[in-house]
Amino acid sequence: MKKFNFRNDYCSVGHNKILQALVDHSKNVYTGYGTDEETNKAAMLIKKEISNENASIFFLSGGTITNKVLISHVLKPYEAVISCDSGHINVHETGTIEQSGHKILTVPNYEGKLRAKDIINVCSAHTDEHMVKPKIVYISNPTEYGTVYNYQELSEISDVCKKNNLYLYVDGARLATALTSDYNDMDFSTFASLVDSFYIGGTKNGLLLGEALVVLNEELANDMKYSIKHFGGMYSKGFVNGIQFKTLFEDGLFYEIGKHQNELAKLLFTELKKLGVEFLYKQETNQIFPIFKNEIIKKIEDTISYEIWEKQDDQTIIRFVTHFNLTTNDIYDVVNMIREVMNDL
Amino acid sequence: MKKFNFRNDYCSVGHNKILQALVDHSKNVYTGYGTDEETNKAAMLIKKEISNENASIFFLSGGTITNKVLISHVLKPYEAVISCDSGHINVHETGTIEQSGHKILTVPNYEGKLRAKDIINVCSAHTDEHMVKPKIVYISNPTEYGTVYNYQELSEISDVCKKNNLYLYVDGARLATALTSDYNDMDFSTFASLVDSFYIGGTKNGLLLGEALVVLNEELANDMKYSIKHFGGMYSKGFVNGIQFKTLFEDGLFYEIGKHQNELAKLLFTELKKLGVEFLYKQETNQIFPIFKNEIIKKIEDTISYEIWEKQDDQTIIRFVTHFNLTTNDIYDVVNMIREVMNDL
Amino acid sequence: MKKFNFRNDYCSVGHNKILQALVDHSKNVYTGYGTDEETNKAAMLIKKEISNENASIFFLSGGTITNKVLISHVLKPYEAVISCDSGHINVHETGTIEQSGHKILTVPNYEGKLRAKDIINVCSAHTDEHMVKPKIVYISNPTEYGTVYNYQELSEISDVCKKNNLYLYVDGARLATALTSDYNDMDFSTFASLVDSFYIGGTKNGLLLGEALVVLNEELANDMKYSIKHFGGMYSKGFVNGIQFKTLFEDGLFYEIGKHQNELAKLLFTELKKLGVEFLYKQETNQIFPIFKNEIIKKIEDTISYEIWEKQDDQTIIRFVTHFNLTTNDIYDVVNMIREVMNDL
Amino acid sequence: MKKFNFRNDYCSVGHNKILQALVDHSKNVYTGYGTDEETNKAAMLIKKEISNENASIFFLSGGTITNKVLISHVLKPYEAVISCDSGHINVHETGTIEQSGHKILTVPNYEGKLRAKDIINVCSAHTDEHMVKPKIVYISNPTEYGTVYNYQELSEISDVCKKNNLYLYVDGARLATALTSDYNDMDFSTFASLVDSFYIGGTKNGLLLGEALVVLNEELANDMKYSIKHFGGMYSKGFVNGIQFKTLFEDGLFYEIGKHQNELAKLLFTELKKLGVEFLYKQETNQIFPIFKNEIIKKIEDTISYEIWEKQDDQTIIRFVTHFNLTTNDIYDVVNMIREVMNDL
Repeated sequence: MKKFNFRNDYCSVGHNKILQALVDHSKNVYTGYGTDEETNKAAMLIKKEISNENASIFFLSGGTITNKVLISHVLKPYEAVISCDSGHINVHETGTIEQSGHKILTVPNYEGKLRAKDIINVCSAHTDEHMVKPKIVYISNPTEYGTVYNYQELSEISDVCKKNNLYLYVDGARLATALTSDYNDMDFSTFASLVDSFYIGGTKNGLLLGEALVVLNEELANDMKYSIKHFGGMYSKGFVNGIQFKTLFEDGLFYEIGKHQNELAKLLFTELKKLGVEFLYKQETNQIFPIFKNEIIKKIEDTISYEIWEKQDDQTIIRFVTHFNLTTNDIYDVVNMIREVMNDL
Repeated sequence: MKKFNFRNDYCSVGHNKILQALVDHSKNVYTGYGTDEETNKAAMLIKKEISNENASIFFLSGGTITNKVLISHVLKPYEAVISCDSGHINVHETGTIEQSGHKILTVPNYEGKLRAKDIINVCSAHTDEHMVKPKIVYISNPTEYGTVYNYQELSEISDVCKKNNLYLYVDGARLATALTSDYNDMDFSTFASLVDSFYIGGTKNGLLLGEALVVLNEELANDMKYSIKHFGGMYSKGFVNGIQFKTLFEDGLFYEIGKHQNELAKLLFTELKKLGVEFLYKQETNQIFPIFKNEIIKKIEDTISYEIWEKQDDQTIIRFVTHFNLTTNDIYDVVNMIREVMNDL
Repeated sequence: MKKFNFRNDYCSVGHNKILQALVDHSKNVYTGYGTDEETNKAAMLIKKEISNENASIFFLSGGTITNKVLISHVLKPYEAVISCDSGHINVHETGTIEQSGHKILTVPNYEGKLRAKDIINVCSAHTDEHMVKPKIVYISNPTEYGTVYNYQELSEISDVCKKNNLYLYVDGARLATALTSDYNDMDFSTFASLVDSFYIGGTKNGLLLGEALVVLNEELANDMKYSIKHFGGMYSKGFVNGIQFKTLFEDGLFYEIGKHQNELAKLLFTELKKLGVEFLYKQETNQIFPIFKNEIIKKIEDTISYEIWEKQDDQTIIRFVTHFNLTTNDIYDVVNMIREVMNDL
Repeated sequence: MKKFNFRNDYCSVGHNKILQALVDHSKNVYTGYGTDEETNKAAMLIKKEISNENASIFFLSGGTITNKVLISHVLKPYEAVISCDSGHINVHETGTIEQSGHKILTVPNYEGKLRAKDIINVCSAHTDEHMVKPKIVYISNPTEYGTVYNYQELSEISDVCKKNNLYLYVDGARLATALTSDYNDMDFSTFASLVDSFYIGGTKNGLLLGEALVVLNEELANDMKYSIKHFGGMYSKGFVNGIQFKTLFEDGLFYEIGKHQNELAKLLFTELKKLGVEFLYKQETNQIFPIFKNEIIKKIEDTISYEIWEKQDDQTIIRFVTHFNLTTNDIYDVVNMIREVMNDL
């Protein structure tokens, strides 16, 4: 591994409180497939967090299978999902939605976001049985570019969905960072009240693995466990998920990790700005996109791991992601290193 | 939970050596999706174990998705898998193989096993394009009834597969108990040499979760990671699997747990036999099927958890499964309890 | 071609009245996809025939795609269809139902028929999300063995379906021969009143091609055209189907052809019986299954075309199918030929 | 029906030579599923036409199912098809490709065409197993806008496909009009030599129904009949297709109809141009796209049937399609009618 790791936020086993909880529960025996009391407690905590006792909570092992299960469960064979072109289901899930038989109808993204008016355009264009029938809208919060939806944007999308008889589903792989973003203006309950379903990412927020699928629209929850098994997402040791999510929501660890990740990204963004570094978008959550001259890239690429976002002529846009086991000192160290490289040129 | 738990072998978080290994590695950072060094070490250990350096090893999160990925990866759309009627993919995976578009061609099981001659019959009956084309054979070792294939049985099946241009795949959800069974007469390398692919179950053998898919037939391994992602089985924190499997194969823990489970089942079987209890099949691995009068069932059902296998008129066949965190004392305790119940009648 | 053709009932272009109708309408222009007036007239005639104005009628090009569309349209991903083992969808449609992601749950057939009590058994065995969920029952009338369901049998199945929340669908590839069979005791309206959907076979009853899917259960008809297109069964020149079906139902041609086919089969059955030929089942519609000594088979196989049903030691069960362009004289000719062969031995 | 029908080219039963051929063959009996001699003759004629004796020819009933079968047959589960955004499979087939599990990767069209350089871009962007793998390129000739590929354009695409290990498939729903277009500079053999597979549209070129799938790449033809049946495209009375296609290719009827359609479209285009009507694209085959002021639209919409292509502020782009049973007089009549309407304003 390189000295500084900003490639992603799923790079270490798990938060020590999560690991400790697993160790603490390791002498017990549980019933399988999420029927145990730990899973039940985790679900109760989440329902309390979103102030909705009628929500249904299902625990799965990863984000891609969670997206697949929810979308495939609610769609009839000829129905389609609307996503912006940069949506994770559209680009980086190797066609799992299509594997279930459904078309993804794409619209251009706007800083990673989907706009309400584009949903209307898609609906207007799909008028008869010679085309697929749009039935669900997929967005991510935060988006693939780390941006977050504010209340007005999400409300508009929610309204358009209701008017057009569409479900609204949110991929929350990094939801903790959205809810604790400086740019967020919704509490968790308000967010949940605007959508039919969303998932709470655990893998990118301190867990060994695990995502919590939350279904608000009761009609969609019916028979969900059949779909979870049918599409390959059933997890026999459900209690491993249950113990982790219970720990995440017992004392605010969920928000604590999200906030920590955001603060490190903000610090990194601010310090690099001071060095004159420009960015593709502003910092809203734990993903930032600095633009470096290629001569700088050459000097840092052996020390820092990151993802290349876009190669341009003499500069490169890269992605830095902060994660739970980085500290403020790590940020200052990497900034100092970059400062030296820039000064040397 | 009831006092004695014999319902299944996926009822506790994980073996303490596995948990300790995860804690020990929790300060490190790793690259994602199984490209890390721990995963590589785990794969090397498995290849060494089966004496095959050309094998390809992929780590997934559960048995059902592993079966789905392998079978769906190797079949063309119109090709089918042969399984005995009691096969896990046929009964207890909620149609995941069909979800990928493939028919399961079933033949009667013989104590949970598939026989070579039934494969020939299926091939003879499927002669043209109006019927699906058999292309892979699925068996489990041990079977759903806890029985194991011996060398002759597996060789015959392997030969028939080769002659009929069929792949052979083994579901090894409980493979450790098959390889350490008194009825097994193959070492791991010999077993592996007879098949095109199999998976090594971790979830039922001490891990928090995880299965290792082993592909011997090189042509089948090509592009496998695409299929793993496409069917929803890709696991971003691959190193969590890697660390666990490395630990499992470093010092023989894999066999140790399998053997322990078998020995407890053998003890329970032997002691219950002494009490006059009859069984559906003999004990070969960690699943045994005692037959109790219903009046006994009534007296033990609040204390012991188990699965009901088949209700008959005045008796019931149940399933007892032993697991890694049971001890010899637990077995004697439950036998004593049953003895008292039987004496009271 | 061999002199006598009893291989199947889809061996010639079409009945001359059907061809004449197509020629008569060939100067007209029509709107596409079944929105034309001829298709509407055909649908009206069928609705009248079954005394149900609320039925929805869709015209498709073949039986396999019709079965696929209806079953795939009504099932959720994890739901399954119950069929007897000899069902056409289970054996001779190359996994088209599985292609749509659904498992076929099979039960033993009884002279080609499915029994009500076997439906109950399947439902009892499928209790939770680890198994597929039975939701529709598929039968054929007549069956693959040419037998027909009588009122009591169909009523029992219909009742069991209603009680178990299952849909009932009938494959009517040769429905005309069932409705005109000596063993049938239901008029078309009564038959239709017992099921949720069925299709009326045209291809095997005088048309160039075409099947009429009839949906009685209104909730199932919703969005059906989307599924027809989605699964590949939409036919742009819908009026070609419309003209043919209108002609079939205008003056009783549908029954006329069915009856003719049955009468020829009955004559052939009766005359062969006189020669001492034994049969697998009695004659109920236009498929009969004589059993011949292999020495006879050798003498007739170059002159008569038929399908081999089952080879036994020194005899063979074959299938003779009668079709609309055979005449009474053809039957006598073939009987005479067989008589001579038998006498020669 | 309205007085003038320019909505589409699948609006009447069939060309009188085709119908006559069906009547002429109606006394014969044939073997099923395309194993008959008429189908064989049709295939031979097509192979002769493209100067390729090793081509495999399969006859199906419609364009959508033909596209689905070919594409689904050649792709592995995680592989994808590249199409321009206006491609028929992408817009107007209700997700049939996705129903088979495959993603359509779209690029912008250029007058309905796909450009070689866009194929390269797609390949460059799809680098690893987190994205689908492009494997086949789909184009239509003529395109959805009636334009045709010339030799240089098709050669470039063909070369790029070979270099990138992609198959090239052409949807030829209206291939006869492409091959007889003034803008075409390839003979049929040259066209065929550049692609792996294409289909020859019959439904829009005088047949009652039917398309001929031509597979040049021998490896792709293997087991094709299994896929045809598996995806629901098998047609029991294959000879009905065989007789029609034999007739189409016996005496040049195929070209005759295509040329007739083009000439009528050219006449209509030229005459409307004289009236000052503008068009979206120039006339290359039998689809033209005039742009009319909305006040004209109001005056012609009850007399002429057409499709609305795009509504703009005060004008509308419509589509006129010519078909085999229109005559030169019909064109003059409709032009006169439009002239009068325009003069009246």
